[in-house]
Amino acid sequence: MFLVFSLVDIFSKSIQKIYAFPENQGFELQEKSDCTPLMSGLLNKMDREKPAKVVFKKGVYHFYPEKAVGFYHEITNHDNGFYRFAFPLCKFSQVEIDGQGSEFIFHGQMIPFLIKESSGIILSNLTIDWEVPHYLQGKIIANNQDNNTIDIEVAKEFKVKQQGNLLTFGAEGWEHAFLGDNIVFDPLTKAPLYNTNEYYITYSENKNIISEQLSPAIFRLKAKFNSHVPPVNSIITFKGTTHFNRTSPAIHLKASKNVTLHNITIHHAGGIGVIAEKTENIHLDKVDVVLRANSGRMVTTTADATHFCNCKGSLIIENCTFENMLDDATNVHGTYLRIEEIIGARTVYASISHFHQYGYDFAQAGDTVQFIRDSTLLPISKNKVLSVSKINGRYYRIRFEHQLPDELKANDGIENITWYPETIIRNNVVRNNRARGFLISSGKPVLIEHNSISSQMSAILFEGDMNHWFESGAVSNVIIRDNSFVDCSYSGYKQPVIFINPMMKKHTDTPFEKNIRIENNSFRSFDSYILDAKSVDGLFFNNNVIEKTNTWLPLWNTMPMINITQSKQVEIKQNAAPGYQEITISLDEKTKSTTKLLQQQ
Amino acid sequence: MFLVFSLVDIFSKSIQKIYAFPENQGFELQEKSDCTPLMSGLLNKMDREKPAKVVFKKGVYHFYPEKAVGFYHEITNHDNGFYRFAFPLCKFSQVEIDGQGSEFIFHGQMIPFLIKESSGIILSNLTIDWEVPHYLQGKIIANNQDNNTIDIEVAKEFKVKQQGNLLTFGAEGWEHAFLGDNIVFDPLTKAPLYNTNEYYITYSENKNIISEQLSPAIFRLKAKFNSHVPPVNSIITFKGTTHFNRTSPAIHLKASKNVTLHNITIHHAGGIGVIAEKTENIHLDKVDVVLRANSGRMVTTTADATHFCNCKGSLIIENCTFENMLDDATNVHGTYLRIEEIIGARTVYASISHFHQYGYDFAQAGDTVQFIRDSTLLPISKNKVLSVSKINGRYYRIRFEHQLPDELKANDGIENITWYPETIIRNNVVRNNRARGFLISSGKPVLIEHNSISSQMSAILFEGDMNHWFESGAVSNVIIRDNSFVDCSYSGYKQPVIFINPMMKKHTDTPFEKNIRIENNSFRSFDSYILDAKSVDGLFFNNNVIEKTNTWLPLWNTMPMINITQSKQVEIKQNAAPGYQEITISLDEKTKSTTKLLQQQ
Repeated sequence: MFLVFSLVDIFSKSIQKIYAFPENQGFELQEKSDCTPLMSGLLNKMDREKPAKVVFKKGVYHFYPEKAVGFYHEITNHDNGFYRFAFPLCKFSQVEIDGQGSEFIFHGQMIPFLIKESSGIILSNLTIDWEVPHYLQGKIIANNQDNNTIDIEVAKEFKVKQQGNLLTFGAEGWEHAFLGDNIVFDPLTKAPLYNTNEYYITYSENKNIISEQLSPAIFRLKAKFNSHVPPVNSIITFKGTTHFNRTSPAIHLKASKNVTLHNITIHHAGGIGVIAEKTENIHLDKVDVVLRANSGRMVTTTADATHFCNCKGSLIIENCTFENMLDDATNVHGTYLRIEEIIGARTVYASISHFHQYGYDFAQAGDTVQFIRDSTLLPISKNKVLSVSKINGRYYRIRFEHQLPDELKANDGIENITWYPETIIRNNVVRNNRARGFLISSGKPVLIEHNSISSQMSAILFEGDMNHWFESGAVSNVIIRDNSFVDCSYSGYKQPVIFINPMMKKHTDTPFEKNIRIENNSFRSFDSYILDAKSVDGLFFNNNVIEKTNTWLPLWNTMPMINITQSKQVEIKQNAAPGYQEITISLDEKTKSTTKLLQQQ
Repeated sequence: MFLVFSLVDIFSKSIQKIYAFPENQGFELQEKSDCTPLMSGLLNKMDREKPAKVVFKKGVYHFYPEKAVGFYHEITNHDNGFYRFAFPLCKFSQVEIDGQGSEFIFHGQMIPFLIKESSGIILSNLTIDWEVPHYLQGKIIANNQDNNTIDIEVAKEFKVKQQGNLLTFGAEGWEHAFLGDNIVFDPLTKAPLYNTNEYYITYSENKNIISEQLSPAIFRLKAKFNSHVPPVNSIITFKGTTHFNRTSPAIHLKASKNVTLHNITIHHAGGIGVIAEKTENIHLDKVDVVLRANSGRMVTTTADATHFCNCKGSLIIENCTFENMLDDATNVHGTYLRIEEIIGARTVYASISHFHQYGYDFAQAGDTVQFIRDSTLLPISKNKVLSVSKINGRYYRIRFEHQLPDELKANDGIENITWYPETIIRNNVVRNNRARGFLISSGKPVLIEHNSISSQMSAILFEGDMNHWFESGAVSNVIIRDNSFVDCSYSGYKQPVIFINPMMKKHTDTPFEKNIRIENNSFRSFDSYILDAKSVDGLFFNNNVIEKTNTWLPLWNTMPMINITQSKQVEIKQNAAPGYQEITISLDEKTKSTTKLLQQQ
């Protein structure tokens, strides 16, 4: 069913030249001196076509943005802009960078690793961290529900300034004018607080936080919390506001092929840990996004641990731990463009709707695309791309090989079905992060097995929508087996452990998703809301065990364990729920009519 | 002394093809429909090498950013970023665009005209305005000095929102989070208030303005004004904060040659009106930056009316009116790079210091540069550029043809002396703007004659500094004659009408500026602080008339009319000051010793 290959095998046999870093091995680095020009100097020297390996003398290396290679850079799920790079691996072939256990400490706004238009790249045996992280945390030392205030104490590591009525934070060349997006952690478990949604200051309110400085490190914040001020001793974190808070992802793969990340630790990134787009064959093996022991920090990456947009070939994520991110463990998807205007028998204007996809290289000549009806998200027909011309970052002209279907109209979608990966996600641990575990939108085979997941929202989510994120990709062949789900979805948002939730406006007789097998998993959960699915053709929930924990009070007692609507060919059998009286199942009429075998309730 | 030529003559003889706009002259535009795709479609069709003229049917045309050609664009004295263009004239040769009196109304953030890597371009007979301008104005209907509040009434044209404690403004795809930079106007004179510095909310305070909405269009603003709340019935204006408020200059010339702008009216731009860089031979003839009659607006361009950075050949600005800008009428200068590190006998790392010059194309192979001592701003020696490599937008590696001088050291400056223009500024009117009239830094001949200037700060300023703006260019041959200066410098900042003020840290026996003749001018002024000069070799102030007006109370009674320091070869003679007892003159010892002939006091 899956491609089986090891990228490490592909590369390592052919290495011809080894470069040491620092090149002069007797060279003693001054403490915290800037290694950026040394590294870009070495990369400039290398023959980009010849297999090579860069071997670091084990040590702690600092990288600063001032002298870093920089250029305007388009990067999905971040804001496009002028970025700086410590390791700009552009148009390289067959290069391994072996940190030999070194730590790379970054400063300010920069992207540590860019792998662009390259092939055969291995990064291994290194740790990525930032001297000053791209977020703020404060310990709540007092609160007042009547006044809507909390007093926070800020550790020295985080750089804050009282500016008028605002508390701003920033360091090393950046500053957030507003505290912005926020979430509260428990310092003992290092996880977000149970039902933390109660303490949330919403997007519309998070610019309106009034600060008063009580002492050099203590600030009284007055804000509109969703329903309660967070408790004393908890840790509130802020990451600034949208458009300004995704500046420094750790590793960016773009338009590349055959990339292995092996034995890499990412303690922090001001954005996503590993963000990949339009890249073929990616292997993450032991890429840990984890807190540094005893650091006192609550947050690793300020967005997803990993994220893959329109990749293809094989995507393998294994033996990784993803903890304390401010977003999902991974998200595998494509992008829907929206048709603005049909301007010829074979030509359309189409637009990008989500600001984090502006400028996205949607397709190139020869790619197969699929037209999608906006209301149902269902395919209309396929076609091949002749050319894509970007009028601007949001507005494209696309020409196709074959005539457009008569029924195509403005607002319908286009997805690039050449660029979806076969995906294997196995032996990973997800815990203590805000948001979800694995989000998967790919029509190619998907295997999710032997993972342990304790995410604050759903552990696994299948979505697809043309109204908010514009992330594309109905699944057609998914196996979720032998995973352990532990107390997921404690955020206070109404989400089950596994959520199949495509966002169509109108349901027809044809479901959106296909063939999802959920088998031999363990669900240990304080809440009994386990599976909610809609619009699936072929959904199998078999041989799973659902156990009740007493970690917290249940949140969604009114929901059945399994709730399925607008689906076909559902099978639920041989599941066990020790500690519960029964496995509660709700099926709507449409689903019920084709459900073959029902779990004994 | 000057090049004499008419760019119009150069072009117009050879026009071969005429394009009408709209191409289908029977085509009736829907009201306010978007002409942007029609225009970019026409430009795409044109042969860029063949002389052509685009002739507009006289009308009102609207341009929107949604479908406008867009790309990442570096633009001096603005922030680099992803810009959109209505008329992207890139790599065109011999093209005239004749509006035939049409009005072009722009929407949102965009640049109306880009002339890049083009030659022989004429724009004529057109008006540029914005549907919603890039600033906010409010009429002060009440004030309270004790509480530091003003109540402002906002006209419907300006789009505001009360967001928490902040008043935000924005429209058509942009929004300012903070009211930001501000100045108060008199609705009767439409000029900034006399001594408006008193009412200024400084940079450090302009994010801390607290707003309370009193009614749909009335807001109470609490702020830290410099010394007084502005008076009732005056008009306060805001333009947002630095880095976010220069998004939409009207006309940008870059790396081009032979450009004429003729009979153009700019009612508004969200940035500079005409910003030119690295362009050879520019002629502005009747380019008016003026308020639209009866519009009620107080502001034209939110930055300078015109600005020229490292242009060469001939720069002629004539028959223009520049009023109600939020910055200078014009600024002609080069750019100092700062040497960071000398890394070889012929190679340095150099940096750009001012954020509005990041990414600037400082020099190309073959340009002659001059090294400058940081403390004195005086030349060390000349050299020729072999190559410039941008490491990033702030950090460059530059190789030179000849060996570097031994005395060169880090922090010294480099200026590109190939790129300065011969400048003629004549028959222009400057009035009612914030800031200065003409700023000139160019070693080539400069003629400023027959202008009428009433600017809020100095009418003419010669500067040059390596600590703030990093604008380069000592003058060596300037004539200022037959101008009429009317009540200039009423801002409350201590500035004379003509200010020669290079910013060196250390004076030597060699002055910075050379040969400045100020002759036959009329100074009608409420204040007697007329000329302040330092570091000039050859300064002539002859045959001028200084008359007192009673427009306002004098601001700088303690200053002499003429104050000259650190200079040589000064001549002051045959000036008259009817209404004054004497022409008061102060010269320091160094200046006095070489002053040939002194005005009778």
